[in-house]
Amino acid sequence: MGLTVKATIASFGGKLFKLSHPSTSTGTDMAVNLYLPPQALKSQTKVPVLFYLSGLTCTPDNCSEKGFFQHGASQRGLAIVYPDTSPRGLNLPGEKDAWDFGEGAGFYVDATQEPWAKGYKMDTYITRELPSVLFGADSEFGKYLDADKVSITGHSMGGHGALTLYLKNPGMYKSVSAFAPIANPCECAWGKKAFAGYLGEENKEEWKKHDATELIKGEKWRGHKDARVLVDVGTGDNFYKQGQLLPENFEKAVKEAGVEGVTVRYQEDYDHSYYFMASFSDEHVDHAAKYLGLL
Amino acid sequence: MGLTVKATIASFGGKLFKLSHPSTSTGTDMAVNLYLPPQALKSQTKVPVLFYLSGLTCTPDNCSEKGFFQHGASQRGLAIVYPDTSPRGLNLPGEKDAWDFGEGAGFYVDATQEPWAKGYKMDTYITRELPSVLFGADSEFGKYLDADKVSITGHSMGGHGALTLYLKNPGMYKSVSAFAPIANPCECAWGKKAFAGYLGEENKEEWKKHDATELIKGEKWRGHKDARVLVDVGTGDNFYKQGQLLPENFEKAVKEAGVEGVTVRYQEDYDHSYYFMASFSDEHVDHAAKYLGLL
Repeated sequence: MGLTVKATIASFGGKLFKLSHPSTSTGTDMAVNLYLPPQALKSQTKVPVLFYLSGLTCTPDNCSEKGFFQHGASQRGLAIVYPDTSPRGLNLPGEKDAWDFGEGAGFYVDATQEPWAKGYKMDTYITRELPSVLFGADSEFGKYLDADKVSITGHSMGGHGALTLYLKNPGMYKSVSAFAPIANPCECAWGKKAFAGYLGEENKEEWKKHDATELIKGEKWRGHKDARVLVDVGTGDNFYKQGQLLPENFEKAVKEAGVEGVTVRYQEDYDHSYYFMASFSDEHVDHAAKYLGLL
Repeated sequence: MGLTVKATIASFGGKLFKLSHPSTSTGTDMAVNLYLPPQALKSQTKVPVLFYLSGLTCTPDNCSEKGFFQHGASQRGLAIVYPDTSPRGLNLPGEKDAWDFGEGAGFYVDATQEPWAKGYKMDTYITRELPSVLFGADSEFGKYLDADKVSITGHSMGGHGALTLYLKNPGMYKSVSAFAPIANPCECAWGKKAFAGYLGEENKEEWKKHDATELIKGEKWRGHKDARVLVDVGTGDNFYKQGQLLPENFEKAVKEAGVEGVTVRYQEDYDHSYYFMASFSDEHVDHAAKYLGLL
C-alpha cells in the first residue's frame, strides 16, 4: 500500500507529486500523479478530488504537462489524480503489439479473458484500490484529500472510463465530464477490439455493462433528473469523423431514456489533442467544482 | 519568402498555425508557429505580437503545447510567434554532437566563426527576416499582425535571446520578459561554450555585445528610467543552482547602472521546466500586454 514519491514539482501555486505504489489489482507497481492545490498545502485542510483518466498510450505525465487542469484546480481548490492507463511490465504475450490494446490501453475494465485477466483490472484499480491507497490511513496525502467529495473526468478512452465508472457506480462520484469520449464502444472499432480481447468475443451482453450509451439506458439512470454529465467533442477530431467516438449515439440514448442533466457540446474545429483539452479544462474543472461544493 | 501552412490547430478560441518558410539568413527552411487569438480572426483587425524564444533543444512545438501562452494571448488579444532555436539540416560537422551547441542551440547570435557562420544567423533571422516574412506584403497573416506593436519573451537560452535582442535594439520591442534566462553568458559554462564556438574563443569583447548583464551597463541603458524588463527564476531550478543563469549578476549590473523598470522575481521551489513557465505565462503575457496598449 505504500506510496513512493518519485518527484515533487511546483505548478500553479501547488505541487504535483509523481508517485508509485505496488498494486494488488494489477500485480505491478503503478505510477500515478497527484496535484495538490495551494488551498490544501497552505491551510492543511482536505480538498475535493477530481480523477482524470487518460486516453490510449498515455501515462500520468501527458495530461499533467499538457492538459492545463492544474490551472483550474488551483483556482477552485481541488486536487487532481492522474492514474496510468494500464499495468506496465507484466510482459504478457502480445502486450506491446498494438497501441490500442494491451499496455497503455486497459480500457478501465476488469479483464475476464486470459492472459489479460492476470493484471488488467483497471476498473477495480481506479474505483477501489487507488482511492484506498491515496485516501487511506497509510497515505501521507490522506490528510489533504476529502474522500467523500470526488468527481471524475477523462479523455478519449479515459472519457469512456470516466462515463462508465460513473454510470456503473451511482453515488461514488459527484459528477462526470469527458473530452472526446469513446461513448459507444460496443459499436466502434476501438471498443470492439478491446472488449473482444478483455471480455471475450462472444460475451456481447457483458460488453454492454461497460458502454456509456448502454448504461445510460439502464434501470439505474432511466428517467434520472440530475445526471451531472458534461461532454465536449471537437468537430475537427479525426477519430470523431472516423466513428470511434459516436457521441450522437449517447445523446440519442439519453433522450430515449428521458435522462436530464446531460450536456453534450460540439466545439467547432477542435481536434483530439491536448490543445483541445487545455482549451476547455477550466470549464470541466468548474463542472466538477460545482458539484463538489466549490462553486 | 513564402509561408507554407503545415497544420492549423484550434486552441483557446484562436488558431495555432504550424508554418515553414525558406530562410535567406540560415539557408534552410525554418519552422515557426504562429498563434492568432480570436480577436484577430473574428474582427479581422491587426493585433499586437509577442515573440517567444525557446530554450536549448526546443522546437516551436514545445512551448506551443506546454507553455499555455495561448491562454493569456486569447484573454488579452495578442498574437504569439514561436520561432525555432537554430537552422536544421545544414549538416555541418559536429552540428548534432551536443545538446547545448549547434542544432537546437543557436543562442540567438550571428556566428562569425566557420563553419557556423554558414547559416547560424539567428539574431538576423529573429530581428530582421522573420518579421518581414510574417508582417510583409507577401504574408497571408500580415493583415492580422500589428508590426508596430511587438514585444519579446523567452525561456533559458531563449530568455538570453529575448533580453539581448531587446537591449541591443532599443525601440524594436515594447517590452521584454524572461523565464530562467542565461543572464550572464560570458560567465557561465553554456555561454562560454556557445560564444567560443560561434564568436571565437579570443573575441571576449564581442561576447559582451551579446550578454544581458553587459548590455544593461552600456550607454544605451545606463540610467534608463523605464526599462520594461520582467524576469522570473525558480529557486528549485537546478541550472540556476549550477550557476548557468546568474540572475544576481544581472540584478547587480542593473543597480550599478541605475536602470529603473527592471523586476527580477525568485519563485519558490519552481524548476526549469514548462511546469514553471505554464504557471506564470499569464503574468508574462500581461507584462507585454501592458506595454502593447492592451491593459
